[in-house]
Amino acid sequence: MYQIPRGTRDFTSEEMQKRRYVEGKIKKTFENFGYNEVQTPTFENLELFTAKSGEAIIEELYSFKDKGDRDLALRPELTAPVIRFYVEKLQMEPKPLKLFYFGNCYRYDRPQKGRYREFRQAGCEIIGTDNPEAYAELIALSYNILKNVGLKNIKLNIGNLSILSSIFKKLNLSDDKIKYITPLIDKSLFDELFSALEDFNVSKKDIEKFLEILQTTDVKKIFNYIESEKSSKEELSKMQEIINLLENSFGIKNYQVKLSIVRGLDYYKGIVFEIEAPNLGAEKQLCGGGAYELVKLFGGRETPTAGFAIGFDRTILALESENYNFPSLKLDAYVIPINEDMINKSLQITQNLREKGYSIDLDLLRRGIGKSLKYASSVNSKKAIIVGPDELKKESVTVKDMKTGEQQLVKIQNLTDFLED
Amino acid sequence: MYQIPRGTRDFTSEEMQKRRYVEGKIKKTFENFGYNEVQTPTFENLELFTAKSGEAIIEELYSFKDKGDRDLALRPELTAPVIRFYVEKLQMEPKPLKLFYFGNCYRYDRPQKGRYREFRQAGCEIIGTDNPEAYAELIALSYNILKNVGLKNIKLNIGNLSILSSIFKKLNLSDDKIKYITPLIDKSLFDELFSALEDFNVSKKDIEKFLEILQTTDVKKIFNYIESEKSSKEELSKMQEIINLLENSFGIKNYQVKLSIVRGLDYYKGIVFEIEAPNLGAEKQLCGGGAYELVKLFGGRETPTAGFAIGFDRTILALESENYNFPSLKLDAYVIPINEDMINKSLQITQNLREKGYSIDLDLLRRGIGKSLKYASSVNSKKAIIVGPDELKKESVTVKDMKTGEQQLVKIQNLTDFLED
Repeated sequence: MYQIPRGTRDFTSEEMQKRRYVEGKIKKTFENFGYNEVQTPTFENLELFTAKSGEAIIEELYSFKDKGDRDLALRPELTAPVIRFYVEKLQMEPKPLKLFYFGNCYRYDRPQKGRYREFRQAGCEIIGTDNPEAYAELIALSYNILKNVGLKNIKLNIGNLSILSSIFKKLNLSDDKIKYITPLIDKSLFDELFSALEDFNVSKKDIEKFLEILQTTDVKKIFNYIESEKSSKEELSKMQEIINLLENSFGIKNYQVKLSIVRGLDYYKGIVFEIEAPNLGAEKQLCGGGAYELVKLFGGRETPTAGFAIGFDRTILALESENYNFPSLKLDAYVIPINEDMINKSLQITQNLREKGYSIDLDLLRRGIGKSLKYASSVNSKKAIIVGPDELKKESVTVKDMKTGEQQLVKIQNLTDFLED
Repeated sequence: MYQIPRGTRDFTSEEMQKRRYVEGKIKKTFENFGYNEVQTPTFENLELFTAKSGEAIIEELYSFKDKGDRDLALRPELTAPVIRFYVEKLQMEPKPLKLFYFGNCYRYDRPQKGRYREFRQAGCEIIGTDNPEAYAELIALSYNILKNVGLKNIKLNIGNLSILSSIFKKLNLSDDKIKYITPLIDKSLFDELFSALEDFNVSKKDIEKFLEILQTTDVKKIFNYIESEKSSKEELSKMQEIINLLENSFGIKNYQVKLSIVRGLDYYKGIVFEIEAPNLGAEKQLCGGGAYELVKLFGGRETPTAGFAIGFDRTILALESENYNFPSLKLDAYVIPINEDMINKSLQITQNLREKGYSIDLDLLRRGIGKSLKYASSVNSKKAIIVGPDELKKESVTVKDMKTGEQQLVKIQNLTDFLED
């Protein structure tokens, strides 16, 4: 027996119905916000990803040589491909460009709950504006998507990497030291962070203040802390403006400022944000995004860019953890020919209803009424249409309601009146 | 500048709108026919494809070793993965199983018009029945999908590999000789076929009869030709039954019997069919399918299987060649704050309409009315909503119809009355 590759998944029709439903909700919200869908290939030239993330990323990639000896990689994420697309073909489009996408991504990772080697992401990029209203809209979009999908319990955190960087500068930390402590900040390992900063000869007083700032949700406190730094003061007042718009124009009050968000310091600049589903435990992050710089690195003319990615699989896990009631597709009717002579007429009735837009299946195994009714119920059909010779003489069939069990004789030409629900 | 990998494509939002539209139509028809969507991973263990198609297929595959030294391959088609899924997890489900799917597939092929290294397929499998009505429904489904998608000019051809094989037997052709002539039959190279059969010492009279049978569309002629062979006579009368159902129950009369259809003789058994779009030239085949055997080879309990695959990209090319009028997504309105003080209120109006389900965008570049109206027209917005201080005092905004140019003052609370179209 052949097996599915490790860390990948098959999806049954029940799972696909959930996935289609969630994808439809996400797509609708992107479109409501004026975003347009694009798509890029499943693999890219390897150098695209090493250019963005450094050589170390190769360890986590599905990379391979094609038969023309080119180094390719299955995409681990979608921002680099979309910005490559932008630089290659879309730079002349009117700005801002608001692009969204769905795509499967690949990481050679240890498989575990909520982490797969092939996983799906939804995401977007806004290219060509860095006004506060653009960022407020972007954050509101991510929040609205997860709300519209049906999630009740989500947490929005907003940070700022420019401000964090200037605090690092204020503490006189070298790049090496910053590299060492960022994972500690990311994982909220504040005791370890304390020791590390002590080792780096930062004064106890400065460390304590820094840790307080990292953990506060009060923008004013942060403001006071870095009032000396002119550049980050501007960044901070812009952040304040974004937050005001988020509250007043988008009605989003359920957020926290969290300066300890560290998302790729080389890449993100300025505002960053994350949305979590607290019930999901270790793999609780559903969405991450912010302002970043990539266009120039990819050879394009500099322009502001920001975006976010939503973990599609985790979003479904989060809905399941909230016992979300996914709608299920049902057959409108299952047609049962009571003997072989009825097959032709049954197919005609079936086809006629399908052409009118109904979802109709029929017995293709000639298994008789009893077994067919059992099958109809197993595939969630709303009605059964039983085609027999006596009824046909009256140009009629028997319609059985699969829920109530009620049966009635119905003229074939009136069948659609009995299918509407 | 980084480039897209050779033979792959980026899709703009205009192209994605077409693709989403076509996918939606295909999905709807599958569902109307009682099929359920499933999905499998993008890559499989390499041996799955060599088991189905032999070692030679490796030449055409994107195959690679993962970091655990497993041989993997990007899927070149979807039937092997879906049958692997069936054997691994779905054998206990009630029969027949009617499964459909969409998926990108990969072939290391010389790129040319209508042939890409990454291409999309739609397809389905019906597992557990080989009754004529099941095959008639399957063929009708493929035909209905392409009709419902909007294609006017398509050609359905129906062949039968069991019958073809028994003719080969009748002509005393060895497996080697059959292997040599099948590509000639496939490409309708009848002169070359004639010479080859002469070389194989088939009598001129037999060759002429065979060529006539290959090219006839008359089932009765074929029937007469092979009346001696009992097994293929049964197959032929079953085929006749399928065709009768296709005509009488499904109303499909626009088909041809074409015994020269050769689709993988090792794999397909019995009925096979193809649908072409004659305008597409060399790459005209949109759909191919038939009854096949794979379950046992993959370690499952033997059961009848049949299915088909539709080339998604070619279907779109075919629609374009017929100048099909794809519907285009339009923004319901583009909101323009006439100065910076209007941003907050503009965002509120925007967000409020979005929450009611409208697709709304707004100026995020603070570029003034003239440029913003130009942008609104470039993104196909139906209306522009201009937010200015004087109008706001009357709790109103100006709504401009982007088609007629007409403007009117509208109370904000009545805005939705002016958006409906």
